[in-house]
Amino acid sequence: MITSTSNARVKDLISLKKRAKERNERDVFVTEGPKMFRETPPERLLDVFVSDGFYRRERALFDDGKPVTVLSDRVFESVSDTRTPQGVLCVVRQFHYRLEDLMQGRVPEVSGAQTNLSKAGDIRDRDGAAGADTPLLIALENLQDPGNLGTILRTAEGAGATGILLGPGCVDIYNPKVIRSTMGSVYRMPFYYTENLKRDMRLLQQKGVRWYAAHLEGSVPYDEASYDGPAGFLIGNESRGLTEETAALADQSVRIPMCGQVESLNAAVAASVLMYEAHRQRRNAKK
Amino acid sequence: MITSTSNARVKDLISLKKRAKERNERDVFVTEGPKMFRETPPERLLDVFVSDGFYRRERALFDDGKPVTVLSDRVFESVSDTRTPQGVLCVVRQFHYRLEDLMQGRVPEVSGAQTNLSKAGDIRDRDGAAGADTPLLIALENLQDPGNLGTILRTAEGAGATGILLGPGCVDIYNPKVIRSTMGSVYRMPFYYTENLKRDMRLLQQKGVRWYAAHLEGSVPYDEASYDGPAGFLIGNESRGLTEETAALADQSVRIPMCGQVESLNAAVAASVLMYEAHRQRRNAKK
Repeated sequence: MITSTSNARVKDLISLKKRAKERNERDVFVTEGPKMFRETPPERLLDVFVSDGFYRRERALFDDGKPVTVLSDRVFESVSDTRTPQGVLCVVRQFHYRLEDLMQGRVPEVSGAQTNLSKAGDIRDRDGAAGADTPLLIALENLQDPGNLGTILRTAEGAGATGILLGPGCVDIYNPKVIRSTMGSVYRMPFYYTENLKRDMRLLQQKGVRWYAAHLEGSVPYDEASYDGPAGFLIGNESRGLTEETAALADQSVRIPMCGQVESLNAAVAASVLMYEAHRQRRNAKK
Repeated sequence: MITSTSNARVKDLISLKKRAKERNERDVFVTEGPKMFRETPPERLLDVFVSDGFYRRERALFDDGKPVTVLSDRVFESVSDTRTPQGVLCVVRQFHYRLEDLMQGRVPEVSGAQTNLSKAGDIRDRDGAAGADTPLLIALENLQDPGNLGTILRTAEGAGATGILLGPGCVDIYNPKVIRSTMGSVYRMPFYYTENLKRDMRLLQQKGVRWYAAHLEGSVPYDEASYDGPAGFLIGNESRGLTEETAALADQSVRIPMCGQVESLNAAVAASVLMYEAHRQRRNAKK
């Protein structure tokens, strides 16, 4: 059991949580909590750290013989950035999707065994309707709040989206706050960071994707456009929205009607309302 | 200019931001930022604190002669709980709605002048459709995340909801994190804290409100119920959902279909998808 915060492995773990550069150089990220532990694709799980108390209580979780490093509760608390530490931290190998994976809605196989939880083709709601067949994308520009990005991934998986395109200025998806708010969807939702959002939007357009810009001055209410074909929603920065040049690339701009004095919706809420409208239309089209 | 953090008024302000008990005893809350300052109903604005730098840059904002207390930038930073302090803090009188106000969608007049921004009857979207005529409520049970509550208020105003009923266990609406994420909607969206959620849900039922419980096992997809009449959505705790006894009071339980491995949506996202579905149906019914 590690009982000192100056232990080299503990320092290393803290550094991986704090520094994107360190994470990227080592091609890993860190997740926290039993739910994330259970849902980690086994072939990506590199290291597991548990608190002494958690390990005593939940020993059965670790019966498969994978090596686990036990930290004293006090040391674990110093590593965890949540108020109520959840007892288990995992070091996980990063994902590397290709642009075209965003249209597939599936997690590409990696070498080795594949987990039940990330197997391809189950982007399908539990009512049996809707589905992975038709691409549904979200493109984000300058999205900076970690909670918003994590929530968008979580809703995207729920609404049957097939991938997330992240343009310049977006927060790092491996930021621990993003990871936490994905509630596990980071393991299953394909995403791709691009330095050239316009080029990649055009490439996807050539493959049939119609882009709908969420815009306060959109030409039609969002529920009057049809999302039955391959579709993607463009969501901009929390305070400034989309840049004009990105919005100009969209095939159509749509607005979410707003009452009262509301100037805009929260970015994750706007993305969610749009994705669920696409999901609603697709479910109803299949009836 | 106040240059010391041990100044009594500064200490007092910090205490109002931190302690709900202090806020409630004094019947006030604290808001931050120029947007909140501009949107504060003038008759509720009790005190304004600005940073020296902000005051120099934005002097014109304060030309109406209302008294303003200037804090040195350093002192202001120590009071502000945001990373990039926004230069102005307001002490504002709390709201006191009655249960029946939740069905009106209007801010009750207080003695004295009334601001443009809080005048009754403009809960109407800017496309001219939908409206305040039909009550649309949200009831929250054990909702604990400040960002979720603030986001729900913001979306509720946007979607034309008329009021928020807060049951036991909900976070304090005057918590600075809630206030910040309302983006001003706290000034305009009627809300009511109840110690007896079931009794008050029944009272509203007697006035014609149909309650729809957002439930993972809901009997129908949320878009198959009709929200054209007076309607309210029940939203539960972020991890545990609604208690069984509250869910049992609902007229109908609805589910938001989910794909993949998603177990639930973020509470503010779920509330937003439901409110905007009601708004969509009401807009389309008026066509």
